[in-house]
Amino acid sequence: MLPKKIRICEVGLRDGLQNEKRMFTTEEKLELLDGMGKAGFSVIEVGSFMSPKAVPQMANTDEVYEKLEKVPGVEYRALIANLRGVERAIACGCKKVKLNVSASRAHNLANLNRTPEESVARFGDCVTCAKEAGLEISGSISMAFGSPWDKEIPIGAVASIVEAYMAVGINEISLSDASGMAFPPQVQEICAYMKKHYPKNMWWLHFHNTRGLGMANILAGMQSGFTQFDSSFAGVGGCPFVPGAAGNVATEDVLNLCEESGIDTGIDFDKALEVSRRVAQLVAHPTDSYLLRAGKSRDLFREIPTGQGKNETMK
Amino acid sequence: MLPKKIRICEVGLRDGLQNEKRMFTTEEKLELLDGMGKAGFSVIEVGSFMSPKAVPQMANTDEVYEKLEKVPGVEYRALIANLRGVERAIACGCKKVKLNVSASRAHNLANLNRTPEESVARFGDCVTCAKEAGLEISGSISMAFGSPWDKEIPIGAVASIVEAYMAVGINEISLSDASGMAFPPQVQEICAYMKKHYPKNMWWLHFHNTRGLGMANILAGMQSGFTQFDSSFAGVGGCPFVPGAAGNVATEDVLNLCEESGIDTGIDFDKALEVSRRVAQLVAHPTDSYLLRAGKSRDLFREIPTGQGKNETMK
Repeated sequence: MLPKKIRICEVGLRDGLQNEKRMFTTEEKLELLDGMGKAGFSVIEVGSFMSPKAVPQMANTDEVYEKLEKVPGVEYRALIANLRGVERAIACGCKKVKLNVSASRAHNLANLNRTPEESVARFGDCVTCAKEAGLEISGSISMAFGSPWDKEIPIGAVASIVEAYMAVGINEISLSDASGMAFPPQVQEICAYMKKHYPKNMWWLHFHNTRGLGMANILAGMQSGFTQFDSSFAGVGGCPFVPGAAGNVATEDVLNLCEESGIDTGIDFDKALEVSRRVAQLVAHPTDSYLLRAGKSRDLFREIPTGQGKNETMK
Repeated sequence: MLPKKIRICEVGLRDGLQNEKRMFTTEEKLELLDGMGKAGFSVIEVGSFMSPKAVPQMANTDEVYEKLEKVPGVEYRALIANLRGVERAIACGCKKVKLNVSASRAHNLANLNRTPEESVARFGDCVTCAKEAGLEISGSISMAFGSPWDKEIPIGAVASIVEAYMAVGINEISLSDASGMAFPPQVQEICAYMKKHYPKNMWWLHFHNTRGLGMANILAGMQSGFTQFDSSFAGVGGCPFVPGAAGNVATEDVLNLCEESGIDTGIDFDKALEVSRRVAQLVAHPTDSYLLRAGKSRDLFREIPTGQGKNETMK
């Protein structure tokens, strides 16, 4: 059974553009945000408050927030790494931030000399500061479905990080597959586990199409009763570990799945396609969006050819 | 629930190469067939016996069959359109042929002035001739999930063609989505219908990745208890109605889904990847294969970086 309604968070401005060589100006980002507003997106990841040196594509996130004409009811979230991110969010009028930790214990221990749970515990000051200022705060777990540094990410390891988030007061959690290693039965297993053990949490799923399974994983997530998914306009983005690999699942491809399957997203498909076309124009390289190549099935209907009588195979 | 075991028919030599500008020589096709044999493919679509003028890429199919060193137990099938195809198959040593009809009544009526069922009824002489010569014969239904010439393909219309096939003695039937319009809940509905009404037939599913749903549709097919799927090395092929659109689901992407999900295919994944890499080299253009871009997840595991301590976000 598929849900009747899902929510999509458009993450292209953050996860998509941070992987693009071209720096998008504040005006271009505002133009895209305007298009998204008109298309009816209700959750948009606007950017991140990271070091501009580390992620130069996101350096103008503060300015984007300052100039953004917010559509009432729309959630404009930003990724942050630490307390500095909360402070920048407060200063520029961002009302929703998202933290992230990797589920790779091996990577965390080697790099930071602490476990993922210890990293999350240190987010306590971010939560306190955010909540005092009236900011909503959520968490995400990257490598939740696999990691290049671990032979396996046991489900218990992900659950333990979920609990660490809950312990600091975060109950909205995104399970992310930036490495593109997730596969459908695993998605179903993890989703079922999370729903069973933490039924009150609010969940997001974030899939990349690295190995072509993004849509199948979204389907598996929907079948498991999950209803919130990240995706990226024109499928821009990438895999942090595989140069040249496909990026986030394309928003318009998810919208096509939903439109054909009778699943309500609240988003105007044609207006969303306009945004994606504009992104494709701006990045000026071929994208991994299927809909931008093939168009909607419904746009394919054509006049019936008559009386040719030559086509013996009808293929 | 997913099946424990599935069968893949490698259709790249036919559906893939018939959409390529480059003409593959008999020697190249034999080299690929040799690779497939070593990889353990048990069903291979070698080519088609169509007019060489209409499909020049398949003109050497007879010669390929004549020179092919057949691996015992492997089914080497060919697509045919009519009695001439059966005769060519018999002459070159092909033992399995597949007929095709489009489910588009509108297209069939306009072009051939008969319904799809009437087209199938005319296949009776092919079946008689094939069976007399000891050839196996199967049927396929293209546009089974949607067509550019029909607002809708009702499930009853597909069922009626299935019955027309059964009436001429064909019980092995492929449901094909060359137009790339299928979507998962529709696949489940059609599969459930076919299993319920025609439980003794042997079914194949043939999906294109035109709108990025190929893998999700295969997943839906597997969940419906279907266990036989067509796919194409390196994802070559295309959509007959959308120039430049993605083609068949890539065999190596399906093998990755199966390996990760613990589904047995009987195929050596690494040896199949070698065949796909060779195809990509021969077609000499970017392909729509994900695995050829990203590699297997298991090949990504790497040394743990140590003591850098700089990566505050772990992203």
